[in-house]
Amino acid sequence: MSGITATYLIHDSSHNLVKKAEGIALGLTIGSWTDLPLLEQQQLKKHKGSIISIEELPEDPKANEYLGKQVTRGLLKIHYPAANFSHDLPAALVTAFGKLSLDGEIKLVDLEFSDDLKQAFPGPKFGLEGIREKLGVYDRPLLMSIFKGVIGRDLTYLKDQLRQQALGGVDLVKDDEILFDNPLTPFAERIQAGKEVLEQVYAETGHRTLYAVNLSGRTFELKEKAKLAAKLGADVLLFNVFAYGLDVLQALAEDEEINIPIMAHPSVSGALTPSEFYGFANPLLLGKLLRLTGADFSLFPSPYGSVALDRGQALGIAADCLDEKEPFKRTIPVPSAGIHPGLVPLLISDFGKDSIINAGGGVHGHPNGAAGGGKAFRAAIDAVLSGTPLSQYEDEDLQIALRLWGNPTEVKA
Amino acid sequence: MSGITATYLIHDSSHNLVKKAEGIALGLTIGSWTDLPLLEQQQLKKHKGSIISIEELPEDPKANEYLGKQVTRGLLKIHYPAANFSHDLPAALVTAFGKLSLDGEIKLVDLEFSDDLKQAFPGPKFGLEGIREKLGVYDRPLLMSIFKGVIGRDLTYLKDQLRQQALGGVDLVKDDEILFDNPLTPFAERIQAGKEVLEQVYAETGHRTLYAVNLSGRTFELKEKAKLAAKLGADVLLFNVFAYGLDVLQALAEDEEINIPIMAHPSVSGALTPSEFYGFANPLLLGKLLRLTGADFSLFPSPYGSVALDRGQALGIAADCLDEKEPFKRTIPVPSAGIHPGLVPLLISDFGKDSIINAGGGVHGHPNGAAGGGKAFRAAIDAVLSGTPLSQYEDEDLQIALRLWGNPTEVKA
Repeated sequence: MSGITATYLIHDSSHNLVKKAEGIALGLTIGSWTDLPLLEQQQLKKHKGSIISIEELPEDPKANEYLGKQVTRGLLKIHYPAANFSHDLPAALVTAFGKLSLDGEIKLVDLEFSDDLKQAFPGPKFGLEGIREKLGVYDRPLLMSIFKGVIGRDLTYLKDQLRQQALGGVDLVKDDEILFDNPLTPFAERIQAGKEVLEQVYAETGHRTLYAVNLSGRTFELKEKAKLAAKLGADVLLFNVFAYGLDVLQALAEDEEINIPIMAHPSVSGALTPSEFYGFANPLLLGKLLRLTGADFSLFPSPYGSVALDRGQALGIAADCLDEKEPFKRTIPVPSAGIHPGLVPLLISDFGKDSIINAGGGVHGHPNGAAGGGKAFRAAIDAVLSGTPLSQYEDEDLQIALRLWGNPTEVKA
Repeated sequence: MSGITATYLIHDSSHNLVKKAEGIALGLTIGSWTDLPLLEQQQLKKHKGSIISIEELPEDPKANEYLGKQVTRGLLKIHYPAANFSHDLPAALVTAFGKLSLDGEIKLVDLEFSDDLKQAFPGPKFGLEGIREKLGVYDRPLLMSIFKGVIGRDLTYLKDQLRQQALGGVDLVKDDEILFDNPLTPFAERIQAGKEVLEQVYAETGHRTLYAVNLSGRTFELKEKAKLAAKLGADVLLFNVFAYGLDVLQALAEDEEINIPIMAHPSVSGALTPSEFYGFANPLLLGKLLRLTGADFSLFPSPYGSVALDRGQALGIAADCLDEKEPFKRTIPVPSAGIHPGLVPLLISDFGKDSIINAGGGVHGHPNGAAGGGKAFRAAIDAVLSGTPLSQYEDEDLQIALRLWGNPTEVKA
């Protein structure tokens, strides 16, 4: 069946999931059915939404109490024929979760595209394999760090911070997502300065680091700006996709002149995902849809830090990023926030080698500076992959980091 | 102070609103302050976020119970200097509610732009006054109806439905927002057919009706499509802005070649607004930000129908649409969903003359067809404005409608 199948989690006070599902399947497609003359039914049949399944879930007293009414919880799967919408993501979203998003306690937990529809979407241009190739690193999780405190700072400051991070052996350094185009460190100059620093570190150490520059500004200027970035040899584009739209990401990913990987930042997505009653499920938004529309990297809150995401949801995002059944290249999952070297065993155990370990404070806050922080993380990764407990791995920077931030997996053991 | 001031509603389990506010003001701007050397403090001062106010709210046992922890509720106002971000909405959103949107129970309830920053935004191109001028209607709420059940239907069907609605005396007819560009009723053909029908009705009756056609498709094709619409003489563009992005709306509103009013549909916005803990407040999203970025009309759920919005929130949206203190033209509030003629006294009492009464089923479901439905609404409006109880107003279509759907304001009285 060519089309999209939406799965909704509903908390419904009418206690009639069948009626609710029928209302959606008809109301969001052809409007009415049984009243129609037979001839019209035949004409409209291929546009009719249909119920795929209805699953009633156990009652949740906490939800009842909070909502102040007894609700039936259920998962409804509704299919919308591809004939009903143009094959772009905005039309798919409006069809499956447009008006319906306003209709009481309803959350979109999944959106499945039929194989023919998937062909309208690009997926990542580089993906996990492409990024590994750029770096020449195949056998371990990648390591990323983040510029910190760069608002109001000049290029000299940024260059020094970048150099320190690269000397620590990180594979990628990303812009702070709140650094926009600005007079002190303009977009093009940042790209050029970044290349200069990273080429120099490569000449000195043989280590290759990629720099993700924040692509920002007005929507209709993004393509030209991204093309300029490509011309200047930018490594990666950081993109606050949820401040724009998934269709904008898709357009950037599809453009052949923008031959640069795109790193999707989850900023603003917290307005869409955390409620149990409303919005989008995290794995759908930060996993499946980001991959469909072409993100090479997906950042999301790790389950460990101060800005923590439920572990199941974080694992769900990663699973959708990497799902081998999809016809797209794989998006690299980047569990972020609150990461320090002592968490590396947990990260690798939870997210595997095909992920990125990403740290800000855990790199910059190291007593030996960002270079020491990067080295501590690289040592922690080596330790885990060689089966050595962190506490027994001989690396001064790692041991300093463990004393500072702790070593939770060994404390627990 | 040039910049944006964000107001957050937080449910905070640390019970330290001051520390929380300080963490936001510094963490989302320059990162740290007290550790910095005096010289750097001087350099960075103009980039430092600041706390405008902290208001602790009464404890809410229901929230505590639901969240499973005792939380302090509060409103935090934080100012972000304009020097920190480029003057576009995506940058403002990422600054004020980017990463922060992911940080626990936090909702963005307001975002105030300093006067100089407002100059970077267009506001509506036509606004309330411009639409009234187009219609030549100054002394009553406008009346709008909606195409229904048009998926899978051909132009003949749409033309007939449009004619019936126009004959009922409605001022505007909008596309169903789930009708996209499609082979049976393509965008350009819909515009042309609509013009033809509405010119004919005007010639017959002297009544002018405007048709809002759904602007859909890929983001980077929207401008060209809108310009085509302008060339074809389209009256109004309907736009599912939340499936795209507010910055896209702004770009359409700013483009001088797109000299057509824009009607913002709230589809997908239900993923962003309904939670008390997360996302955006309705008046901010569907009122202030839509107006700032150039929507001439803002549709939102009425407080009366099946898809009902809290009355205070609906009134808040309308107030932000019309706020005379803003330097923009006024956005017309369109409380929608579940509207029938018996609700007109309530609508006018709540939303005043400067609003649009918008109905789908309440027009099409009338026993005398859409023409009868439109007439019933127009009669109800005349009755209210002349101070006559609906039940005593001599209009056959209105009395039929009241018998069918009820007359709640008189039953209550």
